[in-house]
Amino acid sequence: MAGNPFERETLNLLLFDWLRIDTLAELPAHQGQDVADWTAVLNLADRVSKEALAPAWRASDRTEPELRDGVVRVEPGTRAAVRTWLDAGLHLAAVPEDEGGLSLPFTVAAATMAMSMASHIAAASFPMLSVANSRVIRTFGTAAQIAAFAAPQQAGTALGTMCLSEPNVGSSLGDVATRAVPDGHDDLGPRYRLRGTKMWISAGGQDITEQIVHLVLAKAEGPDGRVISGSGGLSLFAVPSVLPDGRVNDVAVTGLNHKMGWRGTPNCVMAFGEKTGAQGWLIGTEGQGLPIMFQMMNEARIGVGIGAAALAWRGYLTSRSYARERVQGRALDARDAPDPVPLTRHPDVRRMLLAQKAIAEGSLAICLYAARLVDLSGAGDEEAETLLGLLTPIVKSWPSEMGLVANHMAIQIHGGYGYTRDFEVEQIYRDNRLNPIHEGTTGIQGIDLLGRKMLFDRTGGLDLLLRRISETADNAPDDLAGCVTALRAARKALEEGVAAAHDMNDPAAALANATQMLSAAGHVVAGWLLLDLASTERAGEGQKLACRYFSQFELPQVRAWLAPVVAKSDLTATLNEDAL
Amino acid sequence: MAGNPFERETLNLLLFDWLRIDTLAELPAHQGQDVADWTAVLNLADRVSKEALAPAWRASDRTEPELRDGVVRVEPGTRAAVRTWLDAGLHLAAVPEDEGGLSLPFTVAAATMAMSMASHIAAASFPMLSVANSRVIRTFGTAAQIAAFAAPQQAGTALGTMCLSEPNVGSSLGDVATRAVPDGHDDLGPRYRLRGTKMWISAGGQDITEQIVHLVLAKAEGPDGRVISGSGGLSLFAVPSVLPDGRVNDVAVTGLNHKMGWRGTPNCVMAFGEKTGAQGWLIGTEGQGLPIMFQMMNEARIGVGIGAAALAWRGYLTSRSYARERVQGRALDARDAPDPVPLTRHPDVRRMLLAQKAIAEGSLAICLYAARLVDLSGAGDEEAETLLGLLTPIVKSWPSEMGLVANHMAIQIHGGYGYTRDFEVEQIYRDNRLNPIHEGTTGIQGIDLLGRKMLFDRTGGLDLLLRRISETADNAPDDLAGCVTALRAARKALEEGVAAAHDMNDPAAALANATQMLSAAGHVVAGWLLLDLASTERAGEGQKLACRYFSQFELPQVRAWLAPVVAKSDLTATLNEDAL
Repeated sequence: MAGNPFERETLNLLLFDWLRIDTLAELPAHQGQDVADWTAVLNLADRVSKEALAPAWRASDRTEPELRDGVVRVEPGTRAAVRTWLDAGLHLAAVPEDEGGLSLPFTVAAATMAMSMASHIAAASFPMLSVANSRVIRTFGTAAQIAAFAAPQQAGTALGTMCLSEPNVGSSLGDVATRAVPDGHDDLGPRYRLRGTKMWISAGGQDITEQIVHLVLAKAEGPDGRVISGSGGLSLFAVPSVLPDGRVNDVAVTGLNHKMGWRGTPNCVMAFGEKTGAQGWLIGTEGQGLPIMFQMMNEARIGVGIGAAALAWRGYLTSRSYARERVQGRALDARDAPDPVPLTRHPDVRRMLLAQKAIAEGSLAICLYAARLVDLSGAGDEEAETLLGLLTPIVKSWPSEMGLVANHMAIQIHGGYGYTRDFEVEQIYRDNRLNPIHEGTTGIQGIDLLGRKMLFDRTGGLDLLLRRISETADNAPDDLAGCVTALRAARKALEEGVAAAHDMNDPAAALANATQMLSAAGHVVAGWLLLDLASTERAGEGQKLACRYFSQFELPQVRAWLAPVVAKSDLTATLNEDAL
Repeated sequence: MAGNPFERETLNLLLFDWLRIDTLAELPAHQGQDVADWTAVLNLADRVSKEALAPAWRASDRTEPELRDGVVRVEPGTRAAVRTWLDAGLHLAAVPEDEGGLSLPFTVAAATMAMSMASHIAAASFPMLSVANSRVIRTFGTAAQIAAFAAPQQAGTALGTMCLSEPNVGSSLGDVATRAVPDGHDDLGPRYRLRGTKMWISAGGQDITEQIVHLVLAKAEGPDGRVISGSGGLSLFAVPSVLPDGRVNDVAVTGLNHKMGWRGTPNCVMAFGEKTGAQGWLIGTEGQGLPIMFQMMNEARIGVGIGAAALAWRGYLTSRSYARERVQGRALDARDAPDPVPLTRHPDVRRMLLAQKAIAEGSLAICLYAARLVDLSGAGDEEAETLLGLLTPIVKSWPSEMGLVANHMAIQIHGGYGYTRDFEVEQIYRDNRLNPIHEGTTGIQGIDLLGRKMLFDRTGGLDLLLRRISETADNAPDDLAGCVTALRAARKALEEGVAAAHDMNDPAAALANATQMLSAAGHVVAGWLLLDLASTERAGEGQKLACRYFSQFELPQVRAWLAPVVAKSDLTATLNEDAL
């Protein structure tokens, strides 16, 4: 039962008709490019995704990576698929031309990611991590560091990782215990010996490339052997698995985590410096670790959103195919009919398909809209930067949480079959379940949104968002009037919710209900973009249906989620823990 | 990381303080029994659950049942656990004394089921299915059939199954294609030869007992070789795997389904009569198949609710232990504190624990309340019967859908660890995912609730429910006044929703939004029972917190779910399928 993992027409509608990305060719970074160039790259990514990645996805779930003789063996089909993606140069899409890439808009690269992640999210993870890694090195590293650590990744002879978390640290990076002891200075800059254990390291070991460039967050010891406590003491180090002189570095994979899904990407426990100390070179300056990581984290969060959107999309397409083919039961208004009808005749199945469509296309819309903001903000558009900052926690979390709701429905449409491992929806759900966790849990995104982006914001992000929403509402066609009314009501509820949170004059108390705000704001943003998309001239009946579904069935939730915010509930802030 | 699968104190509070099941001793069926008798059985079930079932649960996920030489091999620990449960006689709890059982209230049996299912849901399934099977035979079979087919199950030398669905039939049982050809008559009644394929048969094959008694839904051929179309043509047959003369019947397991979870119970594809025809004996009369099955289905649906409640409960207890032990991050109001704090200090983690507590205890409350209605209705209480009918689809679906929401949060609290198979919450989620599917999907429960139990109801079930809700609201203590207000508002919204559905004067159109009604009604019922429970004199601070959480954070959803019902939305009923 291998269905189509994605539909190119939808992507084209979003990119070219709705987001009008042709206008990005006017930006200095993309001078001389045109839509035909981008279409060629999208076609390539489409083909590689469908022909190389998609066929390897199922096996990657059944044959987990194995740690043998210190080497992590990736499922062979997945290894080959990653190789094909790298050989096609698709990881270079958004890399600037003068740094060895194609200088395409990030929005185009994001669309290639959506196709690859819908096809085989675990295979797509390898190049995605590497792209983020080498971008950090290109941005903050010296020319020698770029040549040693970024260039091989761009050439496809190395892959990169992000080594942030540790067994007892989780999301609280200030508590990182890995230490870096100064160890001289060479062509690659200040050299250190690193010692510590890293946890949750995706692609920490693999047998696709000889070289692995780890970016490791650690605390540099001062001359007195002490480190600065908290996140201010964090620095970032490039730690290659193979040293410049060809010797093997003191880096070892000591264990693999066995995940619910997304199994094709090995997730490693790593020991740095168990023998002589792992050699690493400082990227940027000491104490700059977290700011550098955060710069990268924002795009990583868009990447998570894209992956979640892609899996929501695949689940929708897969269950839609199933519902169209499978006949069962009778229509509600013709219960004595002689023959069973396709599942698509049942209103509740239609509801679950429409909900999935709204979530999948809404998630894609949110992610691609944000990707376009990355492009505009890179070209100096301050409004774009402001809006991007506000939207990032939503881009990360809304597709992640709602994507699972969608995948739940994809399983439900399949009935008992959906609960078996013979059907793709079962794996889709398990793969997607990671997304609300990694790169900052949903709870952390809520605190970012309500705290940094609303209560403590000085950029006017929320006002800008509310203005954009009103513009969309003002310009919607008459046949979407019901959606406009619903969106305006949800917008008003959001405004009141934020006002109530401000009114508490106690950020810590207000933040107790941050996740409620995140859910509500996410729905408002989705409702806004679905209406904006449905208002596009070339949008089809399906986009209008999804918008109507979302307005009638989903937007009323906004006020419900905000109820405890508006009531200034202190329930979770003040309760007696022992009574839980 | 083996946590406590359940907490006896909560169960005792629900049974003895809230539901006052001591009063059930006054019913004729339980004459001469008292709370001490029931406590002894509960203690036994508690011990067997924790000591025999719980330790086998993890291995049952890792070592799936195998089909070897025609025999289904159950994971050995699970096989032993089921044997222990049967040897303890716990499957006889609610069987009437004159039929070889203990005559305990169904409510007490339901509580034993909750403990067993929290401990090892896959092991608990074997006796549960068998209890349902033998009850059907005892109710509708002849004395000879009871002796041949029910007695061995009660003695623990046989287990039973329910063979309803088929590969192309799903929930639409009228389309069953298995045929039964008359084949004479003997001591066991009218004998038939059955031929057909059955799908989704739990415990269809196993190596725990020699004998397996299948109850098979099939269509009996008339003298002209034809069958009656639709569900009216269905009859029920007892088809033992070993015939009365000791020969092996023509019944074979031809395949096993590989499930997302709940793996300890083999789920079989079965061939009846591939060689000479499987011998079966008619239970009841021809054409009575579906009414008999439905009688059993109602208790099976309560069983599903109990399983879902049990897994929500286990997830809650497991994540609560984790959150209490695990330190990470700083409190929102002391972000520069030197040391990390337990996860229970974070309001969003508290929210997820409270939500789980409300869902777990609310689900248990719904199921045990319904179980008590079974007891009362068995004693002739007509109001109890009416209310039970209305509540059954909610009992089945609310714990199933909300239990997964709870389990999602249990994983979320664990962060990345929760996504690994080393932690129990990962398995809990996968096990629980079956519950919204089997014994009638959530969509089917919605149609049952809004259609049969609301629009076409003549028993006054809804009025009775609304009256009971008002009684609880009227009698709640002053410190729960906020909960009373929220419940009254939700009750009013539900009333308006039902009125709007009636007002459409077009049941098929109204039923298009049946699942919305089901979600709303489920929340109202949960809010009602959580308030009723929290109003109990011996309820603790925890019950009050759960009630406050539910009132502030959850009950506002009721109006949101009902929005399309109140608006009489025809979106899903009338849409163009091609645009999906």
